[in-house]
Amino acid sequence: MIDVIGFDADDTLWHNEIIYHQAKDQILQLLKPYQSPETIEQRLDEIEIGNLRYYGYGIKSFGLSMVEAVVDLSNGRISGEELREVIEIVKWMLRKDVELDEYVEETLAVLSSRHDLMLITKGDLFEQERKIKRSGLDGHFRFIEVVGEKTQASYRRVLEKYAIDPARFLMVGNSLRSDILPVLRIGGRAVYIPHDLTWSHEKVEAPEGEGVGYDELANLGELPGYLERLFGGKV
Amino acid sequence: MIDVIGFDADDTLWHNEIIYHQAKDQILQLLKPYQSPETIEQRLDEIEIGNLRYYGYGIKSFGLSMVEAVVDLSNGRISGEELREVIEIVKWMLRKDVELDEYVEETLAVLSSRHDLMLITKGDLFEQERKIKRSGLDGHFRFIEVVGEKTQASYRRVLEKYAIDPARFLMVGNSLRSDILPVLRIGGRAVYIPHDLTWSHEKVEAPEGEGVGYDELANLGELPGYLERLFGGKV
Repeated sequence: MIDVIGFDADDTLWHNEIIYHQAKDQILQLLKPYQSPETIEQRLDEIEIGNLRYYGYGIKSFGLSMVEAVVDLSNGRISGEELREVIEIVKWMLRKDVELDEYVEETLAVLSSRHDLMLITKGDLFEQERKIKRSGLDGHFRFIEVVGEKTQASYRRVLEKYAIDPARFLMVGNSLRSDILPVLRIGGRAVYIPHDLTWSHEKVEAPEGEGVGYDELANLGELPGYLERLFGGKV
Repeated sequence: MIDVIGFDADDTLWHNEIIYHQAKDQILQLLKPYQSPETIEQRLDEIEIGNLRYYGYGIKSFGLSMVEAVVDLSNGRISGEELREVIEIVKWMLRKDVELDEYVEETLAVLSSRHDLMLITKGDLFEQERKIKRSGLDGHFRFIEVVGEKTQASYRRVLEKYAIDPARFLMVGNSLRSDILPVLRIGGRAVYIPHDLTWSHEKVEAPEGEGVGYDELANLGELPGYLERLFGGKV
C-alpha cells in the first residue's frame, strides 16, 4: 500500500524542456553570422553543463551560460543589441505561461482524494514557486518540496522530515536519473513516464532485465488504473 | 518561554553584502571609460530592483542584471573581453569562501544546547545550500528552511509545517523588513541585530515609540545573556 505519491513537476506535470528548445533555436538564429548550428549547440551544452557546479539548475543559470556562450562563439564580436536579445530571451522564458501536460488535472483530482500527494522538484526555488502558483495545482498537494538536487540523500531527508516510510512512498517522473533510481535505492517505488523531450544531462542508461523495480507508463492518465491493478482496488 | 530560535543567515551569521559591494566596485572600474560612478551605481541598482520580479534574489539574478547594466551603461559598446570579466565576477562571487560573523560559532553552540534552532533564509536555493554546507554550521540547526521571500505568509507556513507556536518562536536577523516585522505581525518575538552593510532594498523605516515589540542588540554575542535576562535564567 502507498501513503504518499510524489510527483516530479517539470515535464511530468507541465511543459518545461520545450521552452529551453525554443530559447536555443533563438540563439541559433542570433549566432548564425558567427558559427554553424552544430558548433553552437555543442558549445552551449558544454558551457551549460560545465557551469552546473557554479550555478545549479534553472533558467537564470541557463541565461548566464547563454551570455558566456554568445561571447565565446562570436569570438567576442557580439554586439550590444544582440546581448539585449539574449537578456530578452531569458526574461521571456521566466514569464512564460505554465502549460499543463495532458491528463494532469483529472489525474491529480482523482488521486488527491485517495492519497497524500507530494510535489517534489529540483531547481531554482524562485522559478519553481512561480510555476507551482501559476499552475493552479498547489491545492492538490499536501507537501511541496523544492530541492537543489534529487539524490538518495535528498529524498531520504524529505521523507524523514514528514515521517514517511519509503516503502509506502511512490514517485512518478520523467527522469530515470532524478525521479526513479534514487527512490528505488532508498526502498521506495517508482513509476517512469518518459517525455518526448528530456535534457541529455538527465539521461542515464535504463536498468535492464526482469524486476528492475519500476514500471513504465505511457502517460499520467494511466496512473489511477495502474494503482488499482497493483493494489487490487485497495487504493 | 521560547521553544525555537530562528536565525537569518546572510549578514546575520556570515558576510554577504560585502561581496556585492566588492563586485560593484569591480563594475565601476570596468565601466569607468563609459560613465560616472554615480550614474553606474544608480542604474545598476534600478535594473537590479526592477528585475527582482523576474529573477528573485541571489548572485545569479544580480549577475544577469549586471550584464544588462553594462550593455545599457556602455550604450551597447561593451566589448567581449569586458563581458567575460562580468561573467568572471559572477563566478568569483559564487565561489567565495563563507566568512562567519564574529561570535557566531560560540553563540550557536551555547544556544543549540538549550533550544531548537532554525536557520531561515531567503534567496537562491542552490547558493544558500552551498553556503550552509561550507559554513560548517548546519549541525547546530534542527530545521533549515530556504524560502523565496520572508513574509508573514511564509513564516506562518514554515511554523505550521513543524507545529511551532508563533508565541514561542523568536527570530534573529539584520533586516527589519524580512526578519523582524513579519514575525512580530504573526505573533512571534524578534531580536534585531543591525549590520554595517544592508542593501537599500531591505531597509524600512523602524517603528517608533515604546513597546515596538522587538529588541535591538549590538551583536550576536549578546544574545545568550539577553535571553537569560528576559526569561530570568529559565532558558
